[in-house]
Amino acid sequence: MDFHGGNIYKIFREKNIKEILDYSSNINPYGIPESLKKKIVENTEILERYPDPDYVELREKIALLNKVDISNVIIGNGATEIIFLFMKVIKPEKVLIVSPTFGEYERALRASENKEIKIEYFELEEKDEFKLNIEKLKKELEKKYDLLVMCNPNNPTGKFMKLSETEEVLKKCNKYETKLFVDEAFIEFLEDGYKESIINTGENKRNLFVTRAFTKFFAIPGLRLGYGIFFNKNLEKEIAEKKEPWSVNNIAEMAGITLLEDKEYIEKTLKWITEEKKYMYEKLREIKGIKPYETDVNFISVKINEDNYSAGLNVKKLREKMLEQGILIRDASNFKYLDDRFFRLAIKDRENNDKVLRVLSTFFLPFY
Amino acid sequence: MDFHGGNIYKIFREKNIKEILDYSSNINPYGIPESLKKKIVENTEILERYPDPDYVELREKIALLNKVDISNVIIGNGATEIIFLFMKVIKPEKVLIVSPTFGEYERALRASENKEIKIEYFELEEKDEFKLNIEKLKKELEKKYDLLVMCNPNNPTGKFMKLSETEEVLKKCNKYETKLFVDEAFIEFLEDGYKESIINTGENKRNLFVTRAFTKFFAIPGLRLGYGIFFNKNLEKEIAEKKEPWSVNNIAEMAGITLLEDKEYIEKTLKWITEEKKYMYEKLREIKGIKPYETDVNFISVKINEDNYSAGLNVKKLREKMLEQGILIRDASNFKYLDDRFFRLAIKDRENNDKVLRVLSTFFLPFY
Repeated sequence: MDFHGGNIYKIFREKNIKEILDYSSNINPYGIPESLKKKIVENTEILERYPDPDYVELREKIALLNKVDISNVIIGNGATEIIFLFMKVIKPEKVLIVSPTFGEYERALRASENKEIKIEYFELEEKDEFKLNIEKLKKELEKKYDLLVMCNPNNPTGKFMKLSETEEVLKKCNKYETKLFVDEAFIEFLEDGYKESIINTGENKRNLFVTRAFTKFFAIPGLRLGYGIFFNKNLEKEIAEKKEPWSVNNIAEMAGITLLEDKEYIEKTLKWITEEKKYMYEKLREIKGIKPYETDVNFISVKINEDNYSAGLNVKKLREKMLEQGILIRDASNFKYLDDRFFRLAIKDRENNDKVLRVLSTFFLPFY
Repeated sequence: MDFHGGNIYKIFREKNIKEILDYSSNINPYGIPESLKKKIVENTEILERYPDPDYVELREKIALLNKVDISNVIIGNGATEIIFLFMKVIKPEKVLIVSPTFGEYERALRASENKEIKIEYFELEEKDEFKLNIEKLKKELEKKYDLLVMCNPNNPTGKFMKLSETEEVLKKCNKYETKLFVDEAFIEFLEDGYKESIINTGENKRNLFVTRAFTKFFAIPGLRLGYGIFFNKNLEKEIAEKKEPWSVNNIAEMAGITLLEDKEYIEKTLKWITEEKKYMYEKLREIKGIKPYETDVNFISVKINEDNYSAGLNVKKLREKMLEQGILIRDASNFKYLDDRFFRLAIKDRENNDKVLRVLSTFFLPFY
């Protein structure tokens, strides 16, 4: 299997190497929090018990954090399980996906056994710097979709829509009974992320499904932990029926409980990303030959400019060249509406960012 | 959610207690192997990486162990994920489940989105001590099912069928192109288990699906790790498509690799269970008022006899009484073909087994 850039193991095997500076996956450079390491080391015995199939303790914590009822919260094996589960439950026939975006929504929809499914795409336009045109989307929603899928902040474009904007979308969705699925896997990287989440809306939430992940912010992609929030009481039974039992293991559950309390880690991460996203954008702008798109989170999309592209430099070549220098970037050409001029970079600590910027800058001709 | 006996958390919440002697779940009493504890404690950093989505290292080890090709092996978040995945891929319309058995097969089938599904049951009869009547099953298979589901050794009856027997069933399945799904989650508890597994058959294996778990034998129900073996090349693509990515986390993958090499733990476990299953059966037979059924593995089914049952003692009452003494047994009345006379006990270490036997013996009237 070859998923969205994360498969460094395949590269290790193919290139016969063991180390790489991975700028293709968007993980907090602070690494696994010390609080969690300590907790795991001191509690390996919990593996001898089955996980609580209801995950009550963790769900209570999440419910509290998000000011929702515990019955609105479902725990998953990474946000991925929630995505697949919600799609199975919603079973839409006509879907609109705001794109370019993360590929798993479409994959989950195609896996949802509905042969009749019709997937359409709403384009985030490059000319708008990939910002969502709300009015245009609202117009499009009049075509009465069963489901609208949005990633907010969006991967790979890094743009975040505030509550006042997403609320307008939800309002329109409610009008046509279109379900609204919002993936907020990167929302923790914004200082006002939780405050501006769609879950705080005063609109009726019967059509709203939100998913979140612990993976990226807490640097534990190896652990698999995410959650979903839904508000439609009628779906509770169906969601419980379709969910596989114990999909989240004890270490992941313990991690969730531990991490939500690690205020120190959360604060230092916010401090870092707030500075570093500006730095990375500014420094990328200084490199002639590419165009970065402003980002709200811990990754950034970049385009190879026309001169360099016409001169034969596409993202596949760039990725190979970077790999020769021990750096892996995310080829973004397989995102809908993007092509082989686009790539995505993680934002990490200053030292590594500078290294990536330095290496990157050597490959472009300024043409001036 | 209330699954097959494993939900001690619900009991803790309801009874407001924190400790229990759990004889409802069938976990190796040696507990989590020291080799694994050490490995986890020394390698918490691996959580900072995504799991290898292809799980190459672990699959290679499993392939070697089972003398199959790596392409025949799929890793899952517990055997549960494999059960759900195989059912989604097989998509049977007419299914025969050898019963009484583990309830998740039916749950997975009902979750497989096939509205037309017709599930029938082949009864393991009490008068045969719950041993499978192969000739009768072969006759039944002439009705041309899409899928036959068997658990071997069977949960809750504890009976194991050797290769010569299961092979006969597979032969018949092949004749009618009936898929054969065999759950071998407890096969490691038999000294000759691997040798007698259906995967060693010389018959054509195009219709064969086998699932295994690390959970019970290695005492890591909190970790979630299982695998599936299938032999039909045509299904490789479909299985890959339906599988959720990264469902097994890094600690679970590392555990699998570590545990398969822990020969010492495997040997001491086999020595223990070989003795203790005999002991438990003999001692239960000595308790007047109940009837145990001989077992090949680490749990045993027991029936309350007619005198006691008529005098008002059913398994719900017995479970409550045992719980008052701090012991949880598995009420087996919700297994198809069983009723509220049946319960299942785990087999653990001698000291605890003796305690359970002692407490249990106080509730039955000998009527003689």
